[in-house]
Amino acid sequence: MELQKVAFLFSFLILITVSSATSVVDFCVADFDYPVGPAGYPCKNPANLTVDDFVFSGLGVPGNTSNIFKLAATFAVDTTFPALNGLGLSMLRLDIGVGGVVPIHSHRVSELILVIDGPIIAGFISGDNIAYYKKLNKGDIMIFPQNLLHFQVNVGDKPALAFVSLNSASPGFQTTSPSLFGNDLPTNVIEKITLLDAVQVKKLKELFGGTN
Amino acid sequence: MELQKVAFLFSFLILITVSSATSVVDFCVADFDYPVGPAGYPCKNPANLTVDDFVFSGLGVPGNTSNIFKLAATFAVDTTFPALNGLGLSMLRLDIGVGGVVPIHSHRVSELILVIDGPIIAGFISGDNIAYYKKLNKGDIMIFPQNLLHFQVNVGDKPALAFVSLNSASPGFQTTSPSLFGNDLPTNVIEKITLLDAVQVKKLKELFGGTN
Amino acid sequence: MELQKVAFLFSFLILITVSSATSVVDFCVADFDYPVGPAGYPCKNPANLTVDDFVFSGLGVPGNTSNIFKLAATFAVDTTFPALNGLGLSMLRLDIGVGGVVPIHSHRVSELILVIDGPIIAGFISGDNIAYYKKLNKGDIMIFPQNLLHFQVNVGDKPALAFVSLNSASPGFQTTSPSLFGNDLPTNVIEKITLLDAVQVKKLKELFGGTN
Amino acid sequence: MELQKVAFLFSFLILITVSSATSVVDFCVADFDYPVGPAGYPCKNPANLTVDDFVFSGLGVPGNTSNIFKLAATFAVDTTFPALNGLGLSMLRLDIGVGGVVPIHSHRVSELILVIDGPIIAGFISGDNIAYYKKLNKGDIMIFPQNLLHFQVNVGDKPALAFVSLNSASPGFQTTSPSLFGNDLPTNVIEKITLLDAVQVKKLKELFGGTN
Amino acid sequence: MELQKVAFLFSFLILITVSSATSVVDFCVADFDYPVGPAGYPCKNPANLTVDDFVFSGLGVPGNTSNIFKLAATFAVDTTFPALNGLGLSMLRLDIGVGGVVPIHSHRVSELILVIDGPIIAGFISGDNIAYYKKLNKGDIMIFPQNLLHFQVNVGDKPALAFVSLNSASPGFQTTSPSLFGNDLPTNVIEKITLLDAVQVKKLKELFGGTN
Amino acid sequence: MELQKVAFLFSFLILITVSSATSVVDFCVADFDYPVGPAGYPCKNPANLTVDDFVFSGLGVPGNTSNIFKLAATFAVDTTFPALNGLGLSMLRLDIGVGGVVPIHSHRVSELILVIDGPIIAGFISGDNIAYYKKLNKGDIMIFPQNLLHFQVNVGDKPALAFVSLNSASPGFQTTSPSLFGNDLPTNVIEKITLLDAVQVKKLKELFGGTN
Repeated sequence: MELQKVAFLFSFLILITVSSATSVVDFCVADFDYPVGPAGYPCKNPANLTVDDFVFSGLGVPGNTSNIFKLAATFAVDTTFPALNGLGLSMLRLDIGVGGVVPIHSHRVSELILVIDGPIIAGFISGDNIAYYKKLNKGDIMIFPQNLLHFQVNVGDKPALAFVSLNSASPGFQTTSPSLFGNDLPTNVIEKITLLDAVQVKKLKELFGGTN
Repeated sequence: MELQKVAFLFSFLILITVSSATSVVDFCVADFDYPVGPAGYPCKNPANLTVDDFVFSGLGVPGNTSNIFKLAATFAVDTTFPALNGLGLSMLRLDIGVGGVVPIHSHRVSELILVIDGPIIAGFISGDNIAYYKKLNKGDIMIFPQNLLHFQVNVGDKPALAFVSLNSASPGFQTTSPSLFGNDLPTNVIEKITLLDAVQVKKLKELFGGTN
Repeated sequence: MELQKVAFLFSFLILITVSSATSVVDFCVADFDYPVGPAGYPCKNPANLTVDDFVFSGLGVPGNTSNIFKLAATFAVDTTFPALNGLGLSMLRLDIGVGGVVPIHSHRVSELILVIDGPIIAGFISGDNIAYYKKLNKGDIMIFPQNLLHFQVNVGDKPALAFVSLNSASPGFQTTSPSLFGNDLPTNVIEKITLLDAVQVKKLKELFGGTN
Repeated sequence: MELQKVAFLFSFLILITVSSATSVVDFCVADFDYPVGPAGYPCKNPANLTVDDFVFSGLGVPGNTSNIFKLAATFAVDTTFPALNGLGLSMLRLDIGVGGVVPIHSHRVSELILVIDGPIIAGFISGDNIAYYKKLNKGDIMIFPQNLLHFQVNVGDKPALAFVSLNSASPGFQTTSPSLFGNDLPTNVIEKITLLDAVQVKKLKELFGGTN
Repeated sequence: MELQKVAFLFSFLILITVSSATSVVDFCVADFDYPVGPAGYPCKNPANLTVDDFVFSGLGVPGNTSNIFKLAATFAVDTTFPALNGLGLSMLRLDIGVGGVVPIHSHRVSELILVIDGPIIAGFISGDNIAYYKKLNKGDIMIFPQNLLHFQVNVGDKPALAFVSLNSASPGFQTTSPSLFGNDLPTNVIEKITLLDAVQVKKLKELFGGTN
Repeated sequence: MELQKVAFLFSFLILITVSSATSVVDFCVADFDYPVGPAGYPCKNPANLTVDDFVFSGLGVPGNTSNIFKLAATFAVDTTFPALNGLGLSMLRLDIGVGGVVPIHSHRVSELILVIDGPIIAGFISGDNIAYYKKLNKGDIMIFPQNLLHFQVNVGDKPALAFVSLNSASPGFQTTSPSLFGNDLPTNVIEKITLLDAVQVKKLKELFGGTN
């Protein structure tokens, strides 16, 4: 009894001190009532959290691939799964229809792809312009280093499924073709900085909604 | 023709300068001929690499779960998949037999689990001793923040399969029970620092090969 | 006189520009009116600070060791000494009664212990389950690497005193036994993920206030 | 037509997902309505930004060098050019009159100087007290490592012009003489911690506006 | 005399201790006899260094712009100016002939451009595909955030000159057109992942020396 | 028996995989047979380490204060206590004779001082030249932010003792007076960049062994 009483006091002590020291930095579920900063969003009060804040079911459902790339990319990033904020990880589900692709793109951080249903051809291009690409099968993983352009192509005869992990809660995606052709950057500037022909540029501007 | 010649010169120029500037830091496939350092292993000469260095097929095969935890954890980390070195990502395949578990453990970095075949119960414990745990089904993901104790239990009637991503090529795993009972730390010390009974400590020391 | 006038103007210029550029990031005393974020708390306006914000006297007083571990851990961390916020350091005073211990625990960051009054036995356990432990005397220091389980035991015949430094203002403490037994994690789950006996688990749940 | 419709849907999809995932972390123009934190200021809503937020013209104009050091240092740092916030770069324009100097100082981060009009003598002092200094001419660059004391002196017969880049948006400048002599630190303390003579200390306190 | 003797002893003491503690980390001039690692090259012995190791004159000379982009980019990065290793800064000189461009490209780190002779049009594209571009004149600076595609175009009637600073000694450049068209990535794959026409792809492959 | 056998196999499995994944990065005791790099020294093979590698007794002994500053600073840094390498912590013992001082200095990282025997006056100077200083007594701690100039003065009538913790294994010390006066930096340059008088500069050059 004496022991229990002491234990109670002790656990209370521990609770106070340890909790005050670390409760909010064990994790930092994003509080969208404040603006984001260079290190992410401020944290919700941990007293208001439950285990449901740390679980995300949105990747369990296939996305709609009825689009030009036959691609559905479903995002578990800080803005859709706020528990990732500050913890340096995110995940995407990639459904790629027959003949579909993940168009060439880059992001600030590195990516690991895990192929659930393949085969796909995946590749990246290094800074000295070497293309590293290969057919990946079910269970294969491949690493795409930070910033480098990379892509995936479904080369099978059925829909492909893959999951990618990235080491940031906000990876900073940039897809090359929409970036070049989906805005008001003048055609003659695009010609000069890419060496593409004006006719080609205009054709893709029309496709991606660009002007000028 | 003039253009091609100029292009050749230009691409040569680009090749030299860009290559010299960045070839080894685009990626850093571990060279095990040198000792590791605080930031990882030195890099292999990129001239000797092919796409096969960036692909790992070891996670495609189920592991052997005939052990006390009915668990097979297959590691894609820097020492098994050297292309991960310096890129801040690793992945594990977890095969958990019926009634099996991933025993409680921690690591330096955060982890995202993706359930392929469930259900499993997964949980972690915060610094103020709250247990956050829940049944996860196929397609669910859950985040386990850095350093915090966590576990998974197969609660289904067939083998479970999951993949975990961690944001380091060398996450620094520490499994609690083998850590406590699998070495020569004296029983009376373990008693005092855990409040476990000596009989219990000795029983687990026998199980995990500990002495003293 | 001319010189003084110029100097005045210059010092004013310097004051303005240098001050505006750096005043708040020289240091960042935590402002608890805002939520914490992944990098710590926002900063108080430096105009309102005095030297007293940078000095903490709480570690000069022995803590109360009348508890089950005969331990008083007094914390100088961001929440108790707000000037530490953002500066990557914290300190704890450990008073350990005769026969007392710092129970086995871990934290996100590394720790240096300095023994003022000993002897104590201190140790940590590596990721491959090796126990590194030794008797430390007055003046000894020992390093405990990030995340790894570690402990201290007073093995002398008088109270022990030590100070520990950690390289974060918010180290993220997790003490193993209260983490396992001080919450509602079901006994049968704990059995499976630790291989402890149910009787032992229930006994410690009672001690640490756990349920289920 | 079908294609355009699909493209429209797709670009919309991309816009939503990519934008939500990354819009605020592509860049983080400082919002001064909130306090700064250890990682910088919170970010303005990117919807309110234009290209003008990312361009700064303040360095195009020579500063006024009519002061004791014959120096004008014009700052492009987070507080004057808010787009730098969180991006780890800043720049200063240095106009140094004939016979003028950048007085000895240090900052948290490293600096690269680019000489536009020289010659100047530039130097830094290492931790083992070696002085590395040299005359720099137009087009030369020199690196000054983080924290180390350094200086520049115009040794030509016309005004010198240089630009310095630093790898922080808030470098944390500290100029030695104003730091020592421009405040209320008592003369006898300064004597002891520098070994300067009291007469010298008082003379410079008068120059820099110090007291005591 | 006594004082001088004491001072001698003291300075000796300081020299030994401080030097041993910090000599190699004050700076880390790259030693190319060892392979690079994730954090850069190992350091040369500081005893063998002079001030000349910290100064680079290669940016003082205009480069040859007789190429397809009418561009000369001269690099001060770790491999050409080894003192930058580990210090997080690099600089490039950009000479852009009349009508010339810096083709669209990206890198791992952020960039500040300083225009010495203009005008140029400079721009970057955000993750949600907005193009931020503007005419920059002499003395203007502009920030290009990490990873985002960006470019510069000489829109004046004389050669343009600019210097760019980047916050890494090894920024990791990737130029889009040579990346896409200067290797063996098959034309039909490029078509699918960019939506460019095969005729256009083949034309640029010829220009950049690509095959397949 | 069956269980023990399984346990043996399992612990072997765990030993192999976990050990290979993390053994060298749990800690990284410096191997001085290789040059240091930007992140520290390469690691010794952990198989050759014992607990003695993690314990340092050099701070238990008072240093010799018979010098001009009446100061003995004993260093536990990477070069004297190699287990600190890569772990981001170091510690110094400061013995300060009656009337002695720690002369004004700075370092790359932040510092926490713990006063064991006082009183001392301790202070630092901010970037906008404010001096924050105060008398500290036994048990007080004070934080000195990264890079800022700071000092300690024994103002008691007996020797003072303090320990300082810094959040780097290699803090990068720079003491102002020896830096300015202990090398070959010409007197007339020092005059200009400090505004000290030539007579004063020459006097201190003599004291600290400087020339020119």
